[in-house]
Amino acid sequence: MPDANFRVRAVSESPARVAVKARDFTMIVDEPPNLGGDDKGANPVEYVLAALAGCLNVVGYLVANEMGFQIDKLEIDVYGPLNPARFLGKSYEDRAGYKEITAEMRVDTDADEETLKKWVEAVEDRCPVTDNLVNSTPVRVLATSL
Amino acid sequence: MPDANFRVRAVSESPARVAVKARDFTMIVDEPPNLGGDDKGANPVEYVLAALAGCLNVVGYLVANEMGFQIDKLEIDVYGPLNPARFLGKSYEDRAGYKEITAEMRVDTDADEETLKKWVEAVEDRCPVTDNLVNSTPVRVLATSL
Repeated sequence: MPDANFRVRAVSESPARVAVKARDFTMIVDEPPNLGGDDKGANPVEYVLAALAGCLNVVGYLVANEMGFQIDKLEIDVYGPLNPARFLGKSYEDRAGYKEITAEMRVDTDADEETLKKWVEAVEDRCPVTDNLVNSTPVRVLATSL
Repeated sequence: MPDANFRVRAVSESPARVAVKARDFTMIVDEPPNLGGDDKGANPVEYVLAALAGCLNVVGYLVANEMGFQIDKLEIDVYGPLNPARFLGKSYEDRAGYKEITAEMRVDTDADEETLKKWVEAVEDRCPVTDNLVNSTPVRVLATSL
């Protein structure tokens, strides 16, 4: 199967805000006032959690379907602690990002506990966003002066 | 500096779509039809790229300000290849997520090349989203049957 290529283009609207185009969709990423923004959208690290929630949902239904059980309802809480000190340049002791992330999936289903356990393992393994967080992903940042 | 806690709550609207609440913001994460969705929003892996773009923007301005130069305009292209075979359960050879991610920052500034090089290094180090991608982040997925 060939690789798929995904791409977005972001235009800065303020020192804390970008308008990001992905195909026909526009996503506004901003910061709350205490992190220097105008609060016109969720912030970058909330976008990470949204990405993870979306991924767990789609892979969750896909794997349940393959395993032969039905999901009638699914809610997912995703959260994690992050020390903003490094981001703000105040201390370099802690890592910049989330120290850990927890996703609580509440599933309305008749699958038993053993089945759900296997389901979660497969979902974690096959979710692209989980993979990119749990395992190291090379990120190359290039800067060009206009 | 104490940790900040970020959190979202996602409600499944279809097997491929969630509505994600982060504070007062709602983000719709869906998939295009070829990946099983109704295409009502960007997809999970595009959300990852949007998160990275937003992060590079806010940290970019912050660090430029500290280094004493001005950014008049900033555009960021973010892209990467991903093989959907594992996500779709067709092959387990490749990893599930992006194999690598590239961010091209086009900066309108009078800073010289040497300064921009130092700037990019600091931005990469202090951006929470870069950190969570480049370095391993523990993700705990819990499932509860309703």
